[in-house]
Amino acid sequence: MPHYNLAFLGFGNVGKALAELLLRKAADIETQRGVTFSVTGIATGSRGIALDPDGIDLTKALEFVKSGQSIDKLNRQSSAVNSLDFIQNCGAEVLFETIPVNYASGQPAIDYIRAALELGMHVTTANKGPVVHGYQELTALAKSKGRKFYFESAVMDGAPVFGLFRETLPAANLNALRGVLNSTTNLLLTRMEAGESFTDAVAYAQSIGIAETDPSGDVDGWDAAIKVCALVSVMMGVPLKPHDVDRTGIGAITVDDVAQAKAEGKRWKLVCEAVRDGDQVRARVAPQKVGVESPLYGVMGTTSIVEFESDVLGKLSLIEADPGPHTTAYGLLADFLNAVA
Amino acid sequence: MPHYNLAFLGFGNVGKALAELLLRKAADIETQRGVTFSVTGIATGSRGIALDPDGIDLTKALEFVKSGQSIDKLNRQSSAVNSLDFIQNCGAEVLFETIPVNYASGQPAIDYIRAALELGMHVTTANKGPVVHGYQELTALAKSKGRKFYFESAVMDGAPVFGLFRETLPAANLNALRGVLNSTTNLLLTRMEAGESFTDAVAYAQSIGIAETDPSGDVDGWDAAIKVCALVSVMMGVPLKPHDVDRTGIGAITVDDVAQAKAEGKRWKLVCEAVRDGDQVRARVAPQKVGVESPLYGVMGTTSIVEFESDVLGKLSLIEADPGPHTTAYGLLADFLNAVA
Repeated sequence: MPHYNLAFLGFGNVGKALAELLLRKAADIETQRGVTFSVTGIATGSRGIALDPDGIDLTKALEFVKSGQSIDKLNRQSSAVNSLDFIQNCGAEVLFETIPVNYASGQPAIDYIRAALELGMHVTTANKGPVVHGYQELTALAKSKGRKFYFESAVMDGAPVFGLFRETLPAANLNALRGVLNSTTNLLLTRMEAGESFTDAVAYAQSIGIAETDPSGDVDGWDAAIKVCALVSVMMGVPLKPHDVDRTGIGAITVDDVAQAKAEGKRWKLVCEAVRDGDQVRARVAPQKVGVESPLYGVMGTTSIVEFESDVLGKLSLIEADPGPHTTAYGLLADFLNAVA
Repeated sequence: MPHYNLAFLGFGNVGKALAELLLRKAADIETQRGVTFSVTGIATGSRGIALDPDGIDLTKALEFVKSGQSIDKLNRQSSAVNSLDFIQNCGAEVLFETIPVNYASGQPAIDYIRAALELGMHVTTANKGPVVHGYQELTALAKSKGRKFYFESAVMDGAPVFGLFRETLPAANLNALRGVLNSTTNLLLTRMEAGESFTDAVAYAQSIGIAETDPSGDVDGWDAAIKVCALVSVMMGVPLKPHDVDRTGIGAITVDDVAQAKAEGKRWKLVCEAVRDGDQVRARVAPQKVGVESPLYGVMGTTSIVEFESDVLGKLSLIEADPGPHTTAYGLLADFLNAVA
């Protein structure tokens, strides 16, 4: 039975959820996939680094981090002083990358992913940045090494949006996509439809950990635009950068606008669209009023949807409800299992 | 570049659509998947049989069949007198099975699929019958031969419902599913909401080739029940037969019921449900009134939806709009390409 050493670069909410998922699903992974694993490295942002070629006790690592302690005491190897040292010394065949990333450059994640691929690891990331800014280079590098660079959790959490296209739609050419891809703005619009002010809705979204302290990345449509770029770059084969997207956020949508749409039997949604146009792709993120005939209408709260139009099927839509760190974690797990399958 | 010989057992609407799709996508299949193919056998229901180890001219075969001529004149080999002879002599590595099937037994398709697998072919079927009545046996046989038994088009036409589960949700355990899986009844209910009588709606569905001359298989919920059995048998690992499904059709739903639901902001849908209950699965097909908060509400006409609940993701739904023989054909093509990948 093949055994894989795994390493975590980043151990925030998603990393911790992945550790819990690996503990919970270890028996299923062995029974259903014929795979066993050890975690030989964990690099946290502020709780230290642990390396152990014999396998780190994940339960203990979770306990330490959750109680605010360093995981250094789980370290059984000469210390790694930075992330590149960690990658060099982690002894893993698969790297889970979940560190904070600059969306304008995809760094420093791209450098770390490149280093891990060069060392012959499979890499899976939950970050959009390396997909938007590094997809072609990193995929080519992975291929040259006989490894995989996967990123299921970069868009729509753990819903298998990239997997759907890569694994189940062979020889399909994607002509267009449309969706609601930003959970925060959809939650805000849902709350505003229930009568809440924009400010209160933002405060609520922040209180449950969905919106950032500065919500402009979501509200202004940047997060949605980056997700469109990731989907288009991978599925339509056209590298697209966030500034290429015709982008309008939801800042100008008022509670009155939402109420008026409701009176018409419609709803405002921050709609992401991309359409192939010759060798180019035209992409747009903008609020649109949609009616009940649209599959986007019923997508409420943090639920998201993407609808694909290809040259082989009509419209095919994927909807993910109830996302969270545990579903993002599952996308990373699915990538690992698909990479080594 | 690997080259595959393909054979068609059945050349009705789906078989012809597959032939057209293969012609249209041959270049993409070669470029994107690195695969070439010939069709070395076609067995029609009433237009003869053609075998040619050098490859049958698909364009001519389509012309002949569409103009009511036999394809026997394309036959370059000693004649096959029946389907088992055909399978024996077709020289194919992949068999596309699309013949009429008895849903109570899955026959004669199961016997033909078994014969093809025994001969070392991959087999893909568009029929539900062999999945419901032969999944475990045929999958085990295929595995023992190092081949695949796939059936993407058996449920939701070519939408990758089985592929989604098999390829993109590794180590997931399905706890429940819910959906609208029968196009005919959904079209009837949609027409009735627009004011048409049940009888006129059936006549319309028959006129566009969606409903059969005797529509009871759809109207009474049998088709939906068989599809639930196929999904449950494959994805929940519990063999389920149509009589195990608690089944109520839409026969008792009147135009008045539909209008009343509409007045309440709701819609009647023939809802398919299956829920894991210990080692068993409870399955039901019955009309239900659903509101706009349900992803089933917006599923109109011949569109279908399935929603999965697993132990790793929340609710994940797949919607297929605009189905037809060409999308069913794509499911067969996807199976072929995934089987040989």
